[in-house]
Amino acid sequence: MKSYRIATLGSHSALQILKGAKDEGFETIAICEKGRVQPYEHFKVADRIIELDSMKDLPKVVKDLKKENAIIIPHATFINVFDQKVIEKLDINYFGNRKILNWEADREKQREWLKKAGLTLPKIFKNPEDIDGPVIIKFFGARGGKGFFLAKSAEEFYKKIEEHHGTKYIIQEYVVGAPMYIHYFYSAINDEVEVMSFDKRYESNVDSIGRIAAKDQLDLGLDTSYNITGNVPVVVRESLLPEIFKMGEGVISASKKLEKHGLIGPFSLETVITPELKFYVFEISARIVAGTNPFINGSPYTALRYKEPMSTGRRIAREIKNAIEKNQLDKVLL
Amino acid sequence: MKSYRIATLGSHSALQILKGAKDEGFETIAICEKGRVQPYEHFKVADRIIELDSMKDLPKVVKDLKKENAIIIPHATFINVFDQKVIEKLDINYFGNRKILNWEADREKQREWLKKAGLTLPKIFKNPEDIDGPVIIKFFGARGGKGFFLAKSAEEFYKKIEEHHGTKYIIQEYVVGAPMYIHYFYSAINDEVEVMSFDKRYESNVDSIGRIAAKDQLDLGLDTSYNITGNVPVVVRESLLPEIFKMGEGVISASKKLEKHGLIGPFSLETVITPELKFYVFEISARIVAGTNPFINGSPYTALRYKEPMSTGRRIAREIKNAIEKNQLDKVLL
Amino acid sequence: MKSYRIATLGSHSALQILKGAKDEGFETIAICEKGRVQPYEHFKVADRIIELDSMKDLPKVVKDLKKENAIIIPHATFINVFDQKVIEKLDINYFGNRKILNWEADREKQREWLKKAGLTLPKIFKNPEDIDGPVIIKFFGARGGKGFFLAKSAEEFYKKIEEHHGTKYIIQEYVVGAPMYIHYFYSAINDEVEVMSFDKRYESNVDSIGRIAAKDQLDLGLDTSYNITGNVPVVVRESLLPEIFKMGEGVISASKKLEKHGLIGPFSLETVITPELKFYVFEISARIVAGTNPFINGSPYTALRYKEPMSTGRRIAREIKNAIEKNQLDKVLL
Repeated sequence: MKSYRIATLGSHSALQILKGAKDEGFETIAICEKGRVQPYEHFKVADRIIELDSMKDLPKVVKDLKKENAIIIPHATFINVFDQKVIEKLDINYFGNRKILNWEADREKQREWLKKAGLTLPKIFKNPEDIDGPVIIKFFGARGGKGFFLAKSAEEFYKKIEEHHGTKYIIQEYVVGAPMYIHYFYSAINDEVEVMSFDKRYESNVDSIGRIAAKDQLDLGLDTSYNITGNVPVVVRESLLPEIFKMGEGVISASKKLEKHGLIGPFSLETVITPELKFYVFEISARIVAGTNPFINGSPYTALRYKEPMSTGRRIAREIKNAIEKNQLDKVLL
Repeated sequence: MKSYRIATLGSHSALQILKGAKDEGFETIAICEKGRVQPYEHFKVADRIIELDSMKDLPKVVKDLKKENAIIIPHATFINVFDQKVIEKLDINYFGNRKILNWEADREKQREWLKKAGLTLPKIFKNPEDIDGPVIIKFFGARGGKGFFLAKSAEEFYKKIEEHHGTKYIIQEYVVGAPMYIHYFYSAINDEVEVMSFDKRYESNVDSIGRIAAKDQLDLGLDTSYNITGNVPVVVRESLLPEIFKMGEGVISASKKLEKHGLIGPFSLETVITPELKFYVFEISARIVAGTNPFINGSPYTALRYKEPMSTGRRIAREIKNAIEKNQLDKVLL
Repeated sequence: MKSYRIATLGSHSALQILKGAKDEGFETIAICEKGRVQPYEHFKVADRIIELDSMKDLPKVVKDLKKENAIIIPHATFINVFDQKVIEKLDINYFGNRKILNWEADREKQREWLKKAGLTLPKIFKNPEDIDGPVIIKFFGARGGKGFFLAKSAEEFYKKIEEHHGTKYIIQEYVVGAPMYIHYFYSAINDEVEVMSFDKRYESNVDSIGRIAAKDQLDLGLDTSYNITGNVPVVVRESLLPEIFKMGEGVISASKKLEKHGLIGPFSLETVITPELKFYVFEISARIVAGTNPFINGSPYTALRYKEPMSTGRRIAREIKNAIEKNQLDKVLL
């Protein structure tokens, strides 16, 4: 493994990615913004730290990274900082399939993908007049999940939308049920979908307003928002696992129809499980999610299959190691 | 251990049971419904998988299982699929005491057991006129916990019960507090009650409605339901442990008065802890519960006592192993 | 390590402290109230158990403890049972700096400390007329967090305070966001702040009222309370870690200005993260907190840095061991 190094931006799930890489025998590089290196030093996961004034400066060090034979592992920060077009052109070893990012980034294309995968999605209402039950109105590019609102009729929609004049939005069926984030790993080397773990997000403030009595909530005139502050580990009802595998496999097989080679490596489905135990899928993340962070030392599921504590980060490194050993790196760096 | 095999139905907590059995050196058999074998194959916990058209067909393979010297580990799916009478007559090695199932299945008998154990139960109101505070009205055999409703007076009860005309129900004191599921293991070999772990359930939709602001809940006219979608690990306030041990020991000693040999192996108490730190016990599960699934790789409590990662599933296998070694299998297969 | 023993009161986080001490090679002593020894026996964490009629009788056995070269590890039960003045005078090896307890115990002094550390605190309103948004009214010395109430104007405050006539209270800004408890360890030997883990509390009844639909809450006339029944493990959004380290280091450096040597060993900040990802700090615990109990077998964060499963309890023992080896016990026993 001496010849390749694993690199990632210092944020999101980098601790897990770098630790996993070291455990699999790789040297590691953390690329951090100035003033934000401490976690990567403290936890001793990075053999080298590159400090940048801004994450956006990554292209400046790409040449160096290439010289060191670094493989970059993308995560949400990476995807958010750079346009897909920039990512596609970066001259660097990239774990996964960059082409699939377009299908994740565009809401319409993502729906097409998920439908092709056979998943159940919440309805989208093009016309407010069609609203026939609870809906949530989401704004495009809203940071921190702010300003979302609920309605259950066209009248209510029109009344509430007024204060958001001119903002682009979608009207989505509001599904009441238990949020469940499913963490998958698709091994292109073994052509197999693995179920790694599950989490529920811990969002400010929606995950704490339940602590305020209804009468106080009404008094205070509370507004809700959905900014992620952390993640809570959870296991799923075991009888749902056969369907969960099917869903993951549907995603992979659909992805191969959309793009040559399809999705590679970790991905996650944001679902809501209704009281009838039906999965509604709200979003796909076509890369590692922070929801795997509770499982840096392995999850109840990876403990079944792996002898070592297997995080999703480590699974990535293991896949690269396997690819190197089988001389199939071209299958995982796309 | 070569001579005995561990078998269980492929559902509920089978991953943990089978993994635990393998870790203790047993060969394992998963008995699955057609189309539902993938988790047991994928996670490599089953040495052999028997596929049935329906779980109900288990009796057809009992002869084979017996020939293989299989010991079947019951869990909720097993208990739900078969009548106690069928279970009592199954000609197979059964871990635990089948006789105790009658005391779990019948609400009245269960209350008798729990009271004999010295536990505090929520009040049951035979007469709606006696309602003197918050109550929950539960329907018999309700699947997925649907249709429960709350009331706080006879008038409210009569008004709300109308739409459930003819359904059998009980009126139970509604205790507001923190749900806490306690996982015990009673070793008949060591005559000792162990505290294994704790969880809280993750139910759809009651565990997510708190994410909806009170004003929106009122707008949407939300109904609640209690279908289990998963489990969240939790630890208990340490100063409550002495009482928790006492509660578990009370259950075992009472069980021995109800049935010869009493309860054997894992069991769980569904409790609610009030703000005064009083335990109300709502239900006993006289077998392994799915709430132990977060602890496939051991719990904070089993880490104290065991060198190996000890799940409740593995603890079962360990008990069988100990029984075999001491030639006391008749103590745990009843 | 033979010469020193680790002792603690049997409650709060004693299982973790004693197990960690044994793992580091120390002999251990649990000091328990009569009738409350079972957890410490059962989980085999104590080499010796001292039974007292009441925790308050500890001074009676201090001489014996000293003879055995015992080092006592303080936790919340210890701090609550004894006055700071008693603790300061106890003739016993005490892990940590007793002098810092005064700064924790007094609300005003604690605010001074936290402000000096550069942290953001909720506003305190000396004058009800100044209330300009949601506030929570907390009572001094309230056991079990009962009787707190919310208000959002002077009028509402005066109306609600009436039934609490004569009770001492503070009026605190009510910050809506996700509660996050940060567990730190300050090594005086290495002069370094470590981030150990995170939890959220599981309080009765505020952490379960969200399971009751708003309309039912209003019907039932629910009151809220904040008594801790347990803890739930959580991980924090990784991009917040640089700030979390800074906060911990601020606390330590401020503590050294307040008292010679400052705070030593484990401490915890009770924070709320707003939807804008701003940390509000509500309280500091200047010793091990029960929120570390989910991590008896290590946390996702300690798994990064330590080869062994490292709990906060074990970290304490490791620090003492390091101090002994370097002949610097005077740095950690103050």
